[in-house]
Amino acid sequence: MPIAKSIKNALGSSSMIRKMFEEGNALKKQYGTEKVFDFSLGNPDVDPPPAFHDVFVRLAQENKKGSHGYMPNGGYPDVREAIAKKASLEHEVSIDGSHIVMASGAAGGLNAVFKTICNPGDEVIVTRPFFMEYRPYTANHGAKLIEVDSLADFNLDIKAIGEALSSQTAAVLINSPNNPTGKVYPKQDIAALAQLLVECGKNTGRLPYLVSDEPYREIAYNIHVPPLLSAYSETIIVNSYSKSLSLSGERIGYIAVSPDIAEKDDVMNGLIYSTRTLGFVNAPALMQRIVAELTDSSVDVSIYAHRRDAFTAVLDEVTIEYAVPEGAFYLFCKVPERKKPDSADAGISPDMAFINHLKKYLILGVPGSGFGKTGWVRFAYCINENIIRASALAFKQAMEDW
Amino acid sequence: MPIAKSIKNALGSSSMIRKMFEEGNALKKQYGTEKVFDFSLGNPDVDPPPAFHDVFVRLAQENKKGSHGYMPNGGYPDVREAIAKKASLEHEVSIDGSHIVMASGAAGGLNAVFKTICNPGDEVIVTRPFFMEYRPYTANHGAKLIEVDSLADFNLDIKAIGEALSSQTAAVLINSPNNPTGKVYPKQDIAALAQLLVECGKNTGRLPYLVSDEPYREIAYNIHVPPLLSAYSETIIVNSYSKSLSLSGERIGYIAVSPDIAEKDDVMNGLIYSTRTLGFVNAPALMQRIVAELTDSSVDVSIYAHRRDAFTAVLDEVTIEYAVPEGAFYLFCKVPERKKPDSADAGISPDMAFINHLKKYLILGVPGSGFGKTGWVRFAYCINENIIRASALAFKQAMEDW
Repeated sequence: MPIAKSIKNALGSSSMIRKMFEEGNALKKQYGTEKVFDFSLGNPDVDPPPAFHDVFVRLAQENKKGSHGYMPNGGYPDVREAIAKKASLEHEVSIDGSHIVMASGAAGGLNAVFKTICNPGDEVIVTRPFFMEYRPYTANHGAKLIEVDSLADFNLDIKAIGEALSSQTAAVLINSPNNPTGKVYPKQDIAALAQLLVECGKNTGRLPYLVSDEPYREIAYNIHVPPLLSAYSETIIVNSYSKSLSLSGERIGYIAVSPDIAEKDDVMNGLIYSTRTLGFVNAPALMQRIVAELTDSSVDVSIYAHRRDAFTAVLDEVTIEYAVPEGAFYLFCKVPERKKPDSADAGISPDMAFINHLKKYLILGVPGSGFGKTGWVRFAYCINENIIRASALAFKQAMEDW
Repeated sequence: MPIAKSIKNALGSSSMIRKMFEEGNALKKQYGTEKVFDFSLGNPDVDPPPAFHDVFVRLAQENKKGSHGYMPNGGYPDVREAIAKKASLEHEVSIDGSHIVMASGAAGGLNAVFKTICNPGDEVIVTRPFFMEYRPYTANHGAKLIEVDSLADFNLDIKAIGEALSSQTAAVLINSPNNPTGKVYPKQDIAALAQLLVECGKNTGRLPYLVSDEPYREIAYNIHVPPLLSAYSETIIVNSYSKSLSLSGERIGYIAVSPDIAEKDDVMNGLIYSTRTLGFVNAPALMQRIVAELTDSSVDVSIYAHRRDAFTAVLDEVTIEYAVPEGAFYLFCKVPERKKPDSADAGISPDMAFINHLKKYLILGVPGSGFGKTGWVRFAYCINENIIRASALAFKQAMEDW
């Protein structure tokens, strides 16, 4: 009759974000949706590219027999081949369909990966700030998430990662372009990380996996996102079409592994087994067929570039400091020094206090503590540019009273 | 570098079924697909109903803004309302959208349910024979599957279930119409089970959940599948459109709970949290919108009824005994007595020996040990009726040599 204790506890601790979400909805009801500057969610408002619509309509009309039925749990063989070609180019390797498993979005892919590689008590190292869902994604499979800080510029702290590595380390998990910082890790840092992992393997006899969560790979601003599969033999990348094709609700993505990965058969069979038994069974059939035809398409990144520029102009005007995003669509901002202290802030983090303050001006964001980094806040700019521009006055008033 | 030990072990133990699958494919390559009588898989070859195609094309052409993006993790509110209406009729209750969570098929739904209700070490009671994926679905969340035998006619053994109940019991899991037996549990047995659970709650202080996995509810032959949500307050049903609309590859289904369920908020919030954090995030967006419009549609069950009659005629001819299917599309058959013993059978179960023997005549099925019931075999008849009829000669020859 009572639910599991761990879930009951989780519901308690996530109730803050739920409360924020509900308060946001209440604000929209009270003042009208267009009056609220909602920078809280990473739900792209940019439509899928026109090529998506063309393929979608064609496949619907075609009505091919059996096209909505089961296929092998790893995905349609021809879809896996098409994805492998694209991933080979992006990652400067030569892989084929046998290196690919189709996944139910990056979230589904990451769960399949951690189930496959983590023994109970194994550790997964991640750099703060990070997407907080990594906590349940690892805990689901008995693994422990080890959080190390990034450098001041939000690049990887290779030394700190090195100190966290041990024979308990199943994987290092990175996310580039990064949510929430927008950072793209440079090629030399990836190389340094790879070298570190190779050394760890020599010292401990266990070569950790490098798990790269990269749903934002296609959303980068005049910067090359370096290849990962060619950088290290034990790399497992997880990608999705949630952002690159704006298909976040359709749950479609893939897992790809390095061509030289050790125990390839075990890894691939394990990923397929985990995909099946976690209840994904397979990635959604129709979307597999659609994305296989769209390996050369993505949403118009210039839209996000314009929004980024519009938003940084707003923040510059009120002198809020931020990390300049090289990719993704988030602005990670330092909480400005409070000049007019408020007794209501007692006992809460400065980022929560700032988020609460902004809400009075109908500006919604997420406190950095929601990413393991207090003193910072995240604004998502995957929303209409007019709303971004219109927020300038609200930001100005909010900062005058802060 | 090595994968998780539990996964490595699982790959070893599931290799028998993989081997069978590979052997089946090899047979098809050698003799041609149409020469092999493949009754091994529950992958419906019946197309989705015409109404599906109409809605599918219309939604594709409509190209509604934002229609592929995130929605609340529990599903679109209007979709949940539509499903609640249909479930209310089927289960003789009055529930609304707040009692529904959209799921990525029944497999996804069951994982979300067990994650939500099971503490580590909790027990889930199931009746043998059963769909073997229930083992990982419960083990994923630290629960222990307790297997009790059914009665000789494959109905629930209420007494045996009663003896297995304890304060450790999180749930009793039933599946009706049943895979592999085709049994539909009668209303009085459901009532007896409900009464048993109420008594267990009085004795132990913990009212177990009744989890009903019912993807075959719509595939029943002139028999009413009794309502579950009205039978017991702590019922959680999991349904899918894999069979009723032949959408097995699209991963769409739902979870529904009884109107009087205790701790309703915890259960629903837990189901939504589990759906999110297991990596499903939400059931695929497009398919949610499609099935909401098709609550009055299902595949033509008479097709399966004809196949059942054709298949039982084949089996009657060679006097293979079977449980008469009241629903679903499987024939669960007793392994006939062997008249011509073969030394190759030493050390393997009689059902495996029979399956191996049938393979020589290009007939593929699944041994009952794959469902926890040795001495029986399962044939799936969700394939073309001509193949079923054409198998008569192969069955005759196989039985002459058995």
